[in-house]
Amino acid sequence: MKDKDFAINNEEQITLTRDNVSSAVIKRLPRYFRYLRILIREGKMRISSAELSRRMNITASQIRQDLNCFGGFGQQGYGYNVTYLYARICELLGVSAGFQAVIIGGGNLGRALAKNEMFEKRGVDVVAIFDVDEALVGTTVNDIPILHIDEFERYAATHTVDMAVLTLPKAQALEMAQRIAETDIVGIWNFTGQELDSVDGNLIVENVHLGDSLMTLNYRLNSRNKE
Amino acid sequence: MKDKDFAINNEEQITLTRDNVSSAVIKRLPRYFRYLRILIREGKMRISSAELSRRMNITASQIRQDLNCFGGFGQQGYGYNVTYLYARICELLGVSAGFQAVIIGGGNLGRALAKNEMFEKRGVDVVAIFDVDEALVGTTVNDIPILHIDEFERYAATHTVDMAVLTLPKAQALEMAQRIAETDIVGIWNFTGQELDSVDGNLIVENVHLGDSLMTLNYRLNSRNKE
Repeated sequence: MKDKDFAINNEEQITLTRDNVSSAVIKRLPRYFRYLRILIREGKMRISSAELSRRMNITASQIRQDLNCFGGFGQQGYGYNVTYLYARICELLGVSAGFQAVIIGGGNLGRALAKNEMFEKRGVDVVAIFDVDEALVGTTVNDIPILHIDEFERYAATHTVDMAVLTLPKAQALEMAQRIAETDIVGIWNFTGQELDSVDGNLIVENVHLGDSLMTLNYRLNSRNKE
Repeated sequence: MKDKDFAINNEEQITLTRDNVSSAVIKRLPRYFRYLRILIREGKMRISSAELSRRMNITASQIRQDLNCFGGFGQQGYGYNVTYLYARICELLGVSAGFQAVIIGGGNLGRALAKNEMFEKRGVDVVAIFDVDEALVGTTVNDIPILHIDEFERYAATHTVDMAVLTLPKAQALEMAQRIAETDIVGIWNFTGQELDSVDGNLIVENVHLGDSLMTLNYRLNSRNKE
């Protein structure tokens, strides 16, 4: 089975960031993070680019090039120091930054995310969930309190919140993003499918387009059927 | 606001498929699909690569190159025929193939997906949800019946199912993938975070790593904080 790990969404433009790390490398960092976690769990102290290449299905030369970008220089005959690389990637990715998140939308998707250990693994603390449904307000999901959306501005003004995870219906996404833009919250993790580009130049929006991933699977099934 | 639409997961290897459409182009197709849908909804019959470039935040030359790959030739002074391009991309992506899907795992994520119009929009029919929970069996989500997981093999043998959407806990993913491999189901849309590469060479697995997207947002927030 060839697992392509196709992207949910893509912009292939290669731009250089402040740190001279290209956006293409940045896009691969979370993947290195995942594989390095596994190596650490296995107690592996060092790894060659060849072995990492086999595991990650990326060419060894690509790996060397990527890791050199942020100072992960392998040593001939020794390979890479796994713990050092992991720490460096955590630092770049802000895993140790202690970000706090709120989830806006306590429906099935919001609840699924609230229960997901992904946040904890990546150093993000989910501190509250907001919803309009009076029946949900006052309950908790995974020990995270559900608050009424009317409380949002007051909460944002009195707590440190770095990102809002938008899992509310698409029709309400734009208005909510405008409300967020008026608080100190900078990041939006957007599951709504609504384009939020034009809301506010200070917001950092990360879109999840699950439909794009589904389409890629469709494409691969369709190509296979034609063979 | 610069919306990067960063990828959930990435493999940058450029390989040519049977149709000589590179995997990098294929990865961008779902995005073209989304934007062309919007154009059709707006009643737009044709579009120049320059305008599409502005909307999609991809360079015009990249767009021309991509669309040429599958015969979407723009005409000088006219631009691209939106309906033709959309139809061609639908065909390539298998939107009209009438794929049928089952969701395995009737928890919050499975239910969120079952209610999501994304499947319908992309021509995929969700025909059943499977779960172990006796309390869920016999109920429906969005008119889709929840069946007991013990019924899975019998259902797969008597229905046409093209893909299984795995939303069950990670710990059960490997065993479930093995059960799927023994049926005629070829596609797995994998939300479990469990690597399923080694299960069966005939399976087509599309992984969704939401954590990678979260990490990209972390990175961008972290970079901004340092500025």
